Amino acid sequence: MDNLLFWIVPASSIIALFFAYYFYHQMMGESEGTDDMKRIAYHVRCGAIAYLKQQYKIVLCVFIVITALFAWLSYGLHVQNNWVWFAFLTGGFFSGLAGFFGMKTATAASSRAAYAANQSLDHGLRVAFRSGAVMGLVVVGLGLLDISLWFITLNYFVDSATESEKLILITTTMLTFGMGASLQALFARVGGGIFTKAADVGADLVGKVEAGIPEDDPRNPATIADNVGDNVGDVAGMGADLYESYCGSILATAALGAAAFANTDKQLEAVLAPMLIASVGTILSILGIFAVRVKEGAGMRQLMGALSKGVNISGVLIVVLSYFILNMLELPNALGIWGAIIVGLITGIFIGKATEYYTSHAYKPTQRIADQAKTGPATVIISGMGEGMNSVCAPVLAVVVGTILAYGFASGSWSFEASSMGMGLYGIGIAAVGMLSTLGITLATDAYGPIADNAGGNAEMSGLPPEVRRRTDALDALGNTTAATGKGFAIGSAALTALALLASYVEELKIGLHHQNQDSIIVAGQSIPLNQANLVDFMTAYQVHLMNPKVLLGVFIGAMMAFFFCGLTMNAVGRAAGKMVDEVRRQFKKMPGIMEGTEEPDYARCVQISTMAAQQEMLIPALIAVMTPVLIGLLLGVPGVMGLLAGALAAGFALAVFMANSGGAWDNAKKFIEEGHMGGKGSDAHKAAVIGDTVGDPFKDTSGPSLNILIKLMTMVSIVTAGVTISYSIL
Amino acid sequence: MDNLLFWIVPASSIIALFFAYYFYHQMMGESEGTDDMKRIAYHVRCGAIAYLKQQYKIVLCVFIVITALFAWLSYGLHVQNNWVWFAFLTGGFFSGLAGFFGMKTATAASSRAAYAANQSLDHGLRVAFRSGAVMGLVVVGLGLLDISLWFITLNYFVDSATESEKLILITTTMLTFGMGASLQALFARVGGGIFTKAADVGADLVGKVEAGIPEDDPRNPATIADNVGDNVGDVAGMGADLYESYCGSILATAALGAAAFANTDKQLEAVLAPMLIASVGTILSILGIFAVRVKEGAGMRQLMGALSKGVNISGVLIVVLSYFILNMLELPNALGIWGAIIVGLITGIFIGKATEYYTSHAYKPTQRIADQAKTGPATVIISGMGEGMNSVCAPVLAVVVGTILAYGFASGSWSFEASSMGMGLYGIGIAAVGMLSTLGITLATDAYGPIADNAGGNAEMSGLPPEVRRRTDALDALGNTTAATGKGFAIGSAALTALALLASYVEELKIGLHHQNQDSIIVAGQSIPLNQANLVDFMTAYQVHLMNPKVLLGVFIGAMMAFFFCGLTMNAVGRAAGKMVDEVRRQFKKMPGIMEGTEEPDYARCVQISTMAAQQEMLIPALIAVMTPVLIGLLLGVPGVMGLLAGALAAGFALAVFMANSGGAWDNAKKFIEEGHMGGKGSDAHKAAVIGDTVGDPFKDTSGPSLNILIKLMTMVSIVTAGVTISYSIL
Repeated sequence: MDNLLFWIVPASSIIALFFAYYFYHQMMGESEGTDDMKRIAYHVRCGAIAYLKQQYKIVLCVFIVITALFAWLSYGLHVQNNWVWFAFLTGGFFSGLAGFFGMKTATAASSRAAYAANQSLDHGLRVAFRSGAVMGLVVVGLGLLDISLWFITLNYFVDSATESEKLILITTTMLTFGMGASLQALFARVGGGIFTKAADVGADLVGKVEAGIPEDDPRNPATIADNVGDNVGDVAGMGADLYESYCGSILATAALGAAAFANTDKQLEAVLAPMLIASVGTILSILGIFAVRVKEGAGMRQLMGALSKGVNISGVLIVVLSYFILNMLELPNALGIWGAIIVGLITGIFIGKATEYYTSHAYKPTQRIADQAKTGPATVIISGMGEGMNSVCAPVLAVVVGTILAYGFASGSWSFEASSMGMGLYGIGIAAVGMLSTLGITLATDAYGPIADNAGGNAEMSGLPPEVRRRTDALDALGNTTAATGKGFAIGSAALTALALLASYVEELKIGLHHQNQDSIIVAGQSIPLNQANLVDFMTAYQVHLMNPKVLLGVFIGAMMAFFFCGLTMNAVGRAAGKMVDEVRRQFKKMPGIMEGTEEPDYARCVQISTMAAQQEMLIPALIAVMTPVLIGLLLGVPGVMGLLAGALAAGFALAVFMANSGGAWDNAKKFIEEGHMGGKGSDAHKAAVIGDTVGDPFKDTSGPSLNILIKLMTMVSIVTAGVTISYSIL
Repeated sequence: MDNLLFWIVPASSIIALFFAYYFYHQMMGESEGTDDMKRIAYHVRCGAIAYLKQQYKIVLCVFIVITALFAWLSYGLHVQNNWVWFAFLTGGFFSGLAGFFGMKTATAASSRAAYAANQSLDHGLRVAFRSGAVMGLVVVGLGLLDISLWFITLNYFVDSATESEKLILITTTMLTFGMGASLQALFARVGGGIFTKAADVGADLVGKVEAGIPEDDPRNPATIADNVGDNVGDVAGMGADLYESYCGSILATAALGAAAFANTDKQLEAVLAPMLIASVGTILSILGIFAVRVKEGAGMRQLMGALSKGVNISGVLIVVLSYFILNMLELPNALGIWGAIIVGLITGIFIGKATEYYTSHAYKPTQRIADQAKTGPATVIISGMGEGMNSVCAPVLAVVVGTILAYGFASGSWSFEASSMGMGLYGIGIAAVGMLSTLGITLATDAYGPIADNAGGNAEMSGLPPEVRRRTDALDALGNTTAATGKGFAIGSAALTALALLASYVEELKIGLHHQNQDSIIVAGQSIPLNQANLVDFMTAYQVHLMNPKVLLGVFIGAMMAFFFCGLTMNAVGRAAGKMVDEVRRQFKKMPGIMEGTEEPDYARCVQISTMAAQQEMLIPALIAVMTPVLIGLLLGVPGVMGLLAGALAAGFALAVFMANSGGAWDNAKKFIEEGHMGGKGSDAHKAAVIGDTVGDPFKDTSGPSLNILIKLMTMVSIVTAGVTISYSIL
């Protein structure tokens, strides 16, 4: 390797994985509690593993088919790189591995966190948070490991005329492992999302409403499935989602750097910059995790403060250290690029704060929704939708302003001219990397939420004293707030990454044309050699402008896809929940001992039903997400694909924010009423708010988050199949 | 006028207005019924007029401000045409006039239709439908009148170097009267939408739920406001909406024709073609209206058949006659252009059928929603949203396929090359004109719905025998089906028109550059004279491609605007309904005689409250819709504006379809249950479905339809302020 700084990347990957193991080991040393607690944790663990096994089976089938297809495209049709199929496989494998480790930790942690909370609030926090940290560090560790291994391998094997071309080829090839990660993430996020909400809605509808037993009552056969769902949806799903964003942003930025600095002596440094920032951010995340400590007897505010302190320390230090990294790399306009990193971080924080404002019941929007509960469920729904739609503004404007600033800083000019476009786009990618650089700790605060939630479930089911439940509830509430910030990062980084990936698509086109032995493109009547053509030349050559109906129709279809995908997942939840309702009713009827507490319900059967339903319901959406970019490419060519991606990105981003925030606000409006407002628990207003919350469940945990993945997956598929598009498009 | 065929346009306008008067006169000759019926109709009429007066006052203020602004832009800054302010005014004036006449007819017709239904179903149908026809013919008559007058005036006054430049100048100037029509439509549609749903929700919440009195009970103080709302929202609002689409499609196509055929001897004919097709379509609509006859004792199926027959006759004949028109004009590729007309008609019909499929309870989707009512309101809402989101596919794909076909047919090639782009875009415009050519009768079937609904309200409140109510219900149900088709035409034509207007925007840029004394643009380093530059050259010169972050951020903001606008209107309905609830509660408390039937409620006060609330709530959304394109133009220039329009169009179209269809499906799911399924009226399933219906009200009658206008208004504002954008944009 020509620049020894590279070795920081694998080194920090190993360190991250080491500390992940260390925290895991530490957590496993805690007591699992009483026999009841062990038994319940065992059921949840078995359910989660059974679910994952089933999911991996299906994912394996899909991966085999697609890998075979890619091999055929590479070796048979020669329209794409020979590395693609293998890169695709490793991306999927590592993403799956991260989900597996995260899940294993989370399911082992819940009973231990509950037992720790039995001793003290602080102890509970530490166990739950450090278990979340395992997830965070596994994701970034495996991500950096995959990137390092591929970079070393390709450096060794790829052969090209010039160093510059070689780096471009390497970085664009590495991008394709992002498709494997996206597809794995789609199954994890959508499957998990359907599973968790089917179980949740099913458990609530029959248990709470029909049988009149409280939430998390062990007599409810669906209650274990509900707890399993928290793990598969919120832990494994979220982890796979962010694994993909994390790797995607680093790889897209590397590819953009290779292109922007082509034929300069700083090309390698531009490629290494995002990797190094992410690596240093990982080390700082570990530092931040250790900084999360609370004194004995700390209150809610201190707990929140402790978490914030950890996140803030990592954030401030990455700003400082990235300045030194950029200067060590001696990149031109290092100050501008540094500006882009800061812009990315601030954008992420702003989106997180905006999410908190629109979903926390400490603020007006959610209180207004709670107020509307006084006039019944219809007005709760209407106002929740209204507030959610309004909440779209802040994150979109943050991304818009952030993008302009990152572009301007990095390109060193505000004229948006073609000559500085490469640098500007590199800046957008760097901003995304900046936002995600401390993912190790932000994901830890995020994954901690469902662990605390599950700990609460365990405490309830195993009959621990109510004091323990109150403590786990406090931990859970804290988790809801950090989850809002986490979701802000997830959606914000997905938007920036997708913008950067759109530019990478054009780089991929070049490689595709190379494969066709085409050395030049025709721009306004003139032939321009490929290696001299800039991004704007490609736009002109392929007519990717807004007067081309193919582009406009692509935008239409992209926007439509966002809605269609949500519709499919919403309906899937409805159908899967229906099956769960039937099963719970059947058990209550056939096994009368359940309600009397003399007979244990058949938990496994409920898990199995939810699992099967989730898997079945997942296939069609996945197929559509993968096939659409290919079909549009074949029908409408490059302009159609780029329009599709732009439309899906813009509409999907807005729709995702709307659904996530409406759902979160309904959830907290219910909690606000439960705290004693508008008549409190049991009042008509509360009943109305419960309906709002139930509607919000698939909004915020299934359809909304799945849009992140849809956007990125479609972009990745387009990138990987760019060669197919230019070879076989018919219009 | 060089081509005498032009005179068909003013002539058919006069004929349309004559028949509108004839049907109006005929309707006024019917008996108004009993004293009670007269009294109730009087209240509704007074309320509607009071509302309109208040609305026109506010609209007048807004128009004065904007007109002054335009005069300053023209005479002070010289960045736009001197005709703009005046054209803007006439557009607003004629649109307002159409709404006024429609409303006057509708409010006079309801009691007469009720009384006619008292005699026989057929008689009721004839009175209601012919009253709807007044609205249809007034809209197309005034539209064609405005177009004729302006065309004659500008032909007389405009002076230009060549005939070809003159026609381009005239047609692009005429486009600006579309902005006046859009703005008027925004106030009519959004204000009316807020009014009607505030009254509806308010009346239902207190009347039905709290006081336990049936719908349309005269003791409910909000009931008159509810009936007034049907008129201001569904009659005047819908009329203004379609007035704008109708004129917009004709004018955009004329402008595209002038551009595509510039410097040829067929330019005038290309400009006249859309006007002539619309004119002939108007005559055929009158023919179709006369064809709607049913025999004594006809059933529901025959009624539907009679309406369909009228619409079908007009549709088939316009296909035949437009072939002759195009041949008489001796346009090149007349066969291809004819193909585009047919494509437009078929697309409109297909969207209408798809809307019917997704919203009528004769089909699976709505039945599935009704089925989910068995498990409560939450599952009704979730499945209604899911089905609504899925329903986005069919209309979007129809528009996509329709656009490709219209473009391909008219340009005579499937290669989508720059050289044939002008003709292709003209084809898209022509398809929109084809879709709307028989608006006279399709709008009649649409406006007929609320008249029948109001007739039912009148029958109920004035205590006519239940048999009459059953008849008006049958007429109303028929209206719901035709309304679905009507909404399909409204949204489909808005999409196609907006696509055509996007191309007109570029033509407007040319005029703007002329005003700046700029004669050429720089395309890929070469200077190209304005009159030789084609659309693609403009895209290259202004960098309106998908790698330009300004374009992408524009798309983001456009998508955001669609959601934000919906959020604003949803919340507005919530707030306005809250005020209505308070007022109704106050009256019930202060005037105990109301419930006993000894005291007449203060209907006027409810109307006044709804009116004031609607007007207040309307200003912010209107301001945002008008200001956004201007601000984005100033900040992000031409690429930003075009991105904004594309994003708003794609996301707004999808969102509008989703909201309209979800709302319609909930409404009919409730009706399905009321017909005796899932336990029938009064069951828990019915209560759940009522909640779905209430949520759906602002979806389908306020937020959804207002998006059509938002899209067109933003496009129109962009077109009118194109000169400002190129003169003053900062990035």
